[in-house]
Amino acid sequence: MIKRVILAGFGNVGKEFVKLIDEKRLYIREKYDLDLILCGVLEKEGCIFEDGGIDTSYLINCPLGSQGVLKYTEHYKESYYNYPVLEGDILIECTQSNVKTGGPSINYIINSINRGMDIVMLSKGALATNFNQLMELAGKKDVKIKYSGATAAALPTMDLGVYSLAGAKIISITGVLNGTTNYILNRMFEENISFEQALKEAVEKGIAERENSMDIDGIDSASKILLLANSLMNSNYSLEDVVIKGIRDISKEDILEAKNENKVIKLLCKAYYKDEKLVLEVSPEKVHANSLLGSINGSNKGVVFNTDTMGEIYLIGGASNPRGAAAAALKDVINLCRK
Amino acid sequence: MIKRVILAGFGNVGKEFVKLIDEKRLYIREKYDLDLILCGVLEKEGCIFEDGGIDTSYLINCPLGSQGVLKYTEHYKESYYNYPVLEGDILIECTQSNVKTGGPSINYIINSINRGMDIVMLSKGALATNFNQLMELAGKKDVKIKYSGATAAALPTMDLGVYSLAGAKIISITGVLNGTTNYILNRMFEENISFEQALKEAVEKGIAERENSMDIDGIDSASKILLLANSLMNSNYSLEDVVIKGIRDISKEDILEAKNENKVIKLLCKAYYKDEKLVLEVSPEKVHANSLLGSINGSNKGVVFNTDTMGEIYLIGGASNPRGAAAAALKDVINLCRK
Repeated sequence: MIKRVILAGFGNVGKEFVKLIDEKRLYIREKYDLDLILCGVLEKEGCIFEDGGIDTSYLINCPLGSQGVLKYTEHYKESYYNYPVLEGDILIECTQSNVKTGGPSINYIINSINRGMDIVMLSKGALATNFNQLMELAGKKDVKIKYSGATAAALPTMDLGVYSLAGAKIISITGVLNGTTNYILNRMFEENISFEQALKEAVEKGIAERENSMDIDGIDSASKILLLANSLMNSNYSLEDVVIKGIRDISKEDILEAKNENKVIKLLCKAYYKDEKLVLEVSPEKVHANSLLGSINGSNKGVVFNTDTMGEIYLIGGASNPRGAAAAALKDVINLCRK
Repeated sequence: MIKRVILAGFGNVGKEFVKLIDEKRLYIREKYDLDLILCGVLEKEGCIFEDGGIDTSYLINCPLGSQGVLKYTEHYKESYYNYPVLEGDILIECTQSNVKTGGPSINYIINSINRGMDIVMLSKGALATNFNQLMELAGKKDVKIKYSGATAAALPTMDLGVYSLAGAKIISITGVLNGTTNYILNRMFEENISFEQALKEAVEKGIAERENSMDIDGIDSASKILLLANSLMNSNYSLEDVVIKGIRDISKEDILEAKNENKVIKLLCKAYYKDEKLVLEVSPEKVHANSLLGSINGSNKGVVFNTDTMGEIYLIGGASNPRGAAAAALKDVINLCRK
């Protein structure tokens, strides 16, 4: 089976995705009877499109972002288009997340759905702002949307909820879903340093971005628990319905107090029923140091699903990096294409 | 969509399965557009079959095993057959596992496949002895086989490997896949008691069976890692290829020695490459007490998949009881029927 892929966004994750389909071409063909042909790449300043497939080995040596598209089209002049060409079977959406406005990706996605393309999303923006609209439209057009990359990426939270818990009812979801804040909290705990020092270190190491409010103030975590709840617990919430508290105010004293109780502070995302109403919350909480959620170290993530028939199932780990995120998108593509 | 189900084996798990499709009938219809009709139950001393569906609410009040079938047919005389009636869409196989001979279920399964029925297996027997034969036959007849229930049940090891790691290569699998031995090792650690005492306690509490050699001597664990490796790592091994050591010889001194190193002893199942050859092993090993595998307590199970692109993914928990196993089979049924 041949599937033609269009990639929106040639950032770190987009580039890793191109690398993966380049290196794993034969493996994917043999194991899944699937030929993935990258036909297009969209960026802010232009679009590459080649009907027979882009030269991926050339593209992966081009710089990130629009610069990469321009560099590629210096070499392959006829591949350049100054508008998005959405001619393929699957759109891989990995532009930068903007959970306030949804970002430019909404248009790409809606156009692609209208053309009958399946969608694999890595960015949370459009899902956080326009979840119902996109799902309804996809339903009408008989198009599939997958978004592992937007809900903890290499940690397969959506697969577990949709696939492995089929038939069970999810009573609650509790997770550590943001690697940056987990790293900072862990460093504060281990080194007895302040939030500011730990954040500075995380920025220097490239674990936190310079623009880090989305992580630190809990918005990224909130978007993820929102997506999980809306997808798996039948809710219809938006970001305003999530009670959100970030980790900015956590002091050395808070950490020490937890330590004295043999606890650690984690930025927990929770979806649970209170008086039969589903509540979504993000806030720093003390958990036992030797509990499974307490053991999630470094910039790792983890989640526990509490169910009616299968008990509690923990999912912990998954590479928290661009390659892991790209691998999650590749996984979604393969699963979309399964017979 | 209507699917007619035949159940082989009315033991603890089989009965829980009947209860689940009875209580979840509406939920499954609404959520998955799926009507599961239980048409037949096979037991050693006879078979119930009703084309329009068995009275499940009557059946769940009948005793376990053949006695249940006989009791049911005292009431519904015309439902009794003295031979297995395999007229349905899906066979749920949950007879007792016999990993040495495969057990009587092999015939049910082969006959069902030949009739074009999909198969959901809970017992490991036929899979441990006749894996390739069954998979080949299923391929020829275009029939699907799922067996979450045979590979840690409510802990979705197969789903993770097949579905969530699609496109990734599994470098190794390491797991604690037998709840009984984990319980015994934990009790030895916590209470400083001997293997014999801990086993006695486990039998009294119903956690270990009286016939417990399969668990204690590592055969159950070996069958599970064998199935995972053959399914996910492209091997073609049989039980004789697994190096197996159980927990019978673990002494109080061994446990104490581990404790002094801040470690615990776990019965580990491992699949990994050594000089490019896949090695399968089951043996008790010391692991750090505060590692994730070390934290698996009670009769819980857990597994870690190490992959090329998604890092390490841990899966821990899942109800280790008949209801959890039945829920895993129901999950497989729903996933088989997905469009």
